[in-house]
Amino acid sequence: MHVAIPLYPGFTALDAVGPYTVLALTPGCEVSFVAGGTGPVTDDQGKPTLVATTSYADLPAPDIVVVPGGPGTTAALGDRALLDWLMAADAHTKWTTSVCSGSFLLAAAGLLTGRKATSHWGWVEQLAGFGAEPVSERVVFDGKYVTAAGVSSGIDMAIALVARETGERTAQTVQLAIEYDPEPPFDAGSPHKVPADLHAAALALIGT
Amino acid sequence: MHVAIPLYPGFTALDAVGPYTVLALTPGCEVSFVAGGTGPVTDDQGKPTLVATTSYADLPAPDIVVVPGGPGTTAALGDRALLDWLMAADAHTKWTTSVCSGSFLLAAAGLLTGRKATSHWGWVEQLAGFGAEPVSERVVFDGKYVTAAGVSSGIDMAIALVARETGERTAQTVQLAIEYDPEPPFDAGSPHKVPADLHAAALALIGT
Repeated sequence: MHVAIPLYPGFTALDAVGPYTVLALTPGCEVSFVAGGTGPVTDDQGKPTLVATTSYADLPAPDIVVVPGGPGTTAALGDRALLDWLMAADAHTKWTTSVCSGSFLLAAAGLLTGRKATSHWGWVEQLAGFGAEPVSERVVFDGKYVTAAGVSSGIDMAIALVARETGERTAQTVQLAIEYDPEPPFDAGSPHKVPADLHAAALALIGT
Repeated sequence: MHVAIPLYPGFTALDAVGPYTVLALTPGCEVSFVAGGTGPVTDDQGKPTLVATTSYADLPAPDIVVVPGGPGTTAALGDRALLDWLMAADAHTKWTTSVCSGSFLLAAAGLLTGRKATSHWGWVEQLAGFGAEPVSERVVFDGKYVTAAGVSSGIDMAIALVARETGERTAQTVQLAIEYDPEPPFDAGSPHKVPADLHAAALALIGT
């Protein structure tokens, strides 16, 4: 299985690297970061953080696509090369997936019309304007389309995907390998769990 | 606060990017990937995944150091430039931290002698041979030295660090921003929670 993770300016690193690490450890999976051209891609901190080693032209038919989100998503909605690649790649994929605001790019490529999908809690409802049916869950499967909530949820999504594709034993083995036995210091990861004044502060941090 | 995350061949991407994303979102923090020279660094998948934008020489006195782990740690134990930079940087740091097998690099630099420390469950006991006192907990604070367990634990560590350094409200805001409300599909992230035959399979995935 060849997994392609497209990078675009302003992506959030953990959106991409959570699924990358889970999938790269899965036997039989090869994961490539892709972009219009090869080389470092600037992330949401304005730094060249991750490297695209493969161009869209060189990987037109991946088995799995994982689209990360980030503040750069808005500009990327106008990135014709990315959207065209997504549409063409989707004709071949076994799974087409996203993390955080990456679902808006899938939707803009016409791939989530009428489908249940999720995104970061700050924007999930806006998916309706893109033709999808917003669902406030951490990981949403609708056929071969799998969308995950904000940033860190890509880890949960990728493990669930490995379980569907390769079996629960493999998924559990990868989970153990990365010691994914989370102990968040606070129970503050969902807007329903914190005072409302934290919502705007959190959205400000991620550039909205 | 300037945070330095040193990269070396064979590091595991999530070890570095979990803390990177948490700390980069923290107001007042600037995070740089550092190495002997600038440019892409090859990770544990044999690909140039992350980019060092700063050299050791250019960032001798960071406020916080976060050392990632990975299968490359063993070779990095002989990387004099890395160990010398760690020792010199530690003279200035407010916090010196690690994820996964990164604690062995701190120990090899002489920074964990007689201190409580942790690492990935597969190797934590071996820290005793490096002069540290192994502790099987997800995040271990001993003075300014903070060590985290395997791979994904760097997210928990970084949030705990932000809470100590900047306050609980900021830590909770960052946690909400990255929607870190984990829902692992399985309760399989700790060796105590899975059948023993998964242990060797998991260690094989991460190259031991």
